[in-house]
Amino acid sequence: MRVCNFSAGPTTLSEDVLKEIQKGLVEYENTGMSVLEMSHRSQPYYDIHDEFLALMRELLNINDDYEILVMQGGASAQFDAIPANFLHSDKDKADYIVTGHFSNKAWLAAKNIYKGTKCIASTTDTGYTTIPDFKKLKFTKNAKYVHITSNNTVYGCQYKEFPKTEAPLVCDMSSDIASYDVDYSQFDLVYAGLQKNLGSAGGAAVIIKKDLLKNINPKCPITFRYDEQARAKSILNTPPTFTIFVAMMNLRNLKKLGGVKAIEKVNKEKAALLYDFLDNSKLFKNRVEKKYRSIMNVPFFSPSKEMDQKFIQEASKKGFVNLAGYSVAGGMRVSIYNNMKLEPVKKLVEFMKDFEVKNK
Amino acid sequence: MRVCNFSAGPTTLSEDVLKEIQKGLVEYENTGMSVLEMSHRSQPYYDIHDEFLALMRELLNINDDYEILVMQGGASAQFDAIPANFLHSDKDKADYIVTGHFSNKAWLAAKNIYKGTKCIASTTDTGYTTIPDFKKLKFTKNAKYVHITSNNTVYGCQYKEFPKTEAPLVCDMSSDIASYDVDYSQFDLVYAGLQKNLGSAGGAAVIIKKDLLKNINPKCPITFRYDEQARAKSILNTPPTFTIFVAMMNLRNLKKLGGVKAIEKVNKEKAALLYDFLDNSKLFKNRVEKKYRSIMNVPFFSPSKEMDQKFIQEASKKGFVNLAGYSVAGGMRVSIYNNMKLEPVKKLVEFMKDFEVKNK
Repeated sequence: MRVCNFSAGPTTLSEDVLKEIQKGLVEYENTGMSVLEMSHRSQPYYDIHDEFLALMRELLNINDDYEILVMQGGASAQFDAIPANFLHSDKDKADYIVTGHFSNKAWLAAKNIYKGTKCIASTTDTGYTTIPDFKKLKFTKNAKYVHITSNNTVYGCQYKEFPKTEAPLVCDMSSDIASYDVDYSQFDLVYAGLQKNLGSAGGAAVIIKKDLLKNINPKCPITFRYDEQARAKSILNTPPTFTIFVAMMNLRNLKKLGGVKAIEKVNKEKAALLYDFLDNSKLFKNRVEKKYRSIMNVPFFSPSKEMDQKFIQEASKKGFVNLAGYSVAGGMRVSIYNNMKLEPVKKLVEFMKDFEVKNK
Repeated sequence: MRVCNFSAGPTTLSEDVLKEIQKGLVEYENTGMSVLEMSHRSQPYYDIHDEFLALMRELLNINDDYEILVMQGGASAQFDAIPANFLHSDKDKADYIVTGHFSNKAWLAAKNIYKGTKCIASTTDTGYTTIPDFKKLKFTKNAKYVHITSNNTVYGCQYKEFPKTEAPLVCDMSSDIASYDVDYSQFDLVYAGLQKNLGSAGGAAVIIKKDLLKNINPKCPITFRYDEQARAKSILNTPPTFTIFVAMMNLRNLKKLGGVKAIEKVNKEKAALLYDFLDNSKLFKNRVEKKYRSIMNVPFFSPSKEMDQKFIQEASKKGFVNLAGYSVAGGMRVSIYNNMKLEPVKKLVEFMKDFEVKNK
């Protein structure tokens, strides 16, 4: 029996997609081998690789001003790669807006190495439950970029619109890319770990304005370099071939389901079910400012750690797994990425109602 | 029908291992989910991760003076990571010995950023067909490390013993790790992309002396840092979970086959079959100095590019695939990693004999 996996990442995948991957696991189509064994310099692999990049462009509606890259190492490697690509010396400046655990990690990674980086706003003192007022932001003049994180995976708040910046706007969309219809042309660089809405763990997608590729720091480590990766069509060295295959199969399925606009509808429905219940609950509470609530990660708390534990354990027995909040945050968290269907969320809400009745 | 895949990497895998991976692809053991969907912070994943690291230690006979890490990005990312970890400033020195295409890449990656690096020996002028005479090596005093590449994947030469160095000896063993019994305690750091003898593409193993972890450059990008990765037991951020699972399953199989000493016997037998044929061939020629011939990658050439193409095409029709040499090298190359069995190599040699008779 497959469980209902509400993990914050790696994410649950479509059972249909998994079954298709399973079918070809020993012999993929007419290649006589598994994708796991495929040379990254062979036509069958090129077909997979190119289809992934083409589906990214089509489904996210990315125009020709942008390159789409797939990099190794997940979003955390991008925390290192972004300043390494764009900051040529300590004189080069960049702004960071910190609205959660991972945007703070991005900022700390840059700050540790590059003197010109600055955190221009942080919502730490609110417990990362809100997004800063754009009108109050003071951007650094001539900054090389402004870094934001669109969705806070740990604490569950999400930008609903984006600041207009003079400097290139860099956005970590690891936990909400491809989940709703957004105009990607308002960003200069978007990146996302593959292991949430895009596929499984082991890589990151980078959508980057071609203009930015013209001024990469020549002293940037080569495996971080966006210009080199663009030139090599994301095969600078052996790419994570199977990870890219899984992502391609997952995007094929998203297309079949009607694409981003169709999945947005379902995502909003799932989120509404959870928030409606939480707003009426006397036992559980979501702490995020209402207008910034995430449609991907819904954290909530009971009155005590003991009750949290009881909830997590009883839910797990019913097949609702990975509901514990992130280590530093505590409480519970329901992650409802693209591949989490509506039905399990309905069932979870029923279980929560039931748990509340029994534990008031 | 599965083909005989002589790819230089990603490598062919055991059909039995692939079938086991296939079996659990939708539901792994009693977890109710695929390994592709598994939280990297859950017990079922920890079990996989820990078993991989334990099998590495057991099969390669690594003592407790060493940490074993798994990093993202393949061996190329290590070309960037090694100088970034160990060279704190332009005053810090490191030596590189260049004996092939990838050791040259490692050297170029370091040289581009770090002024103190030096190529102290190169076999470029021989066409990378030999290993330098250790007696003639002039190491730099107080170097932070000496970098070598044990096996030349492209041109097919291999160290048969290793230089004794005052500085820590760093060895890229991407294409011959776990293929023969070697004393790893003669190295201070060994690294290898996972996609050859260890598993599939998307990561690298690093075996590092614990002493070296004490003096990491604090300005090293965090996702490159060996000390941080050691502290986090190789889960600094979301690791390439499925890639590590495949590597674990592959090593489990190696253990079942009798471990490294048993596979070494088979590897040497496969190599001997090919070299014996080539030494007696009037059509094909291997150019590597005999005593340095690789037991993993066997390149050879016919008298003309047209004949090379004819051979590659006819072989492919018979199910012997990925026999073209590396782009910059041309000719042919037979890669006979751990998972390539003896029988297909015998059949390939029969085919080569036959081809020679028909084309003399």
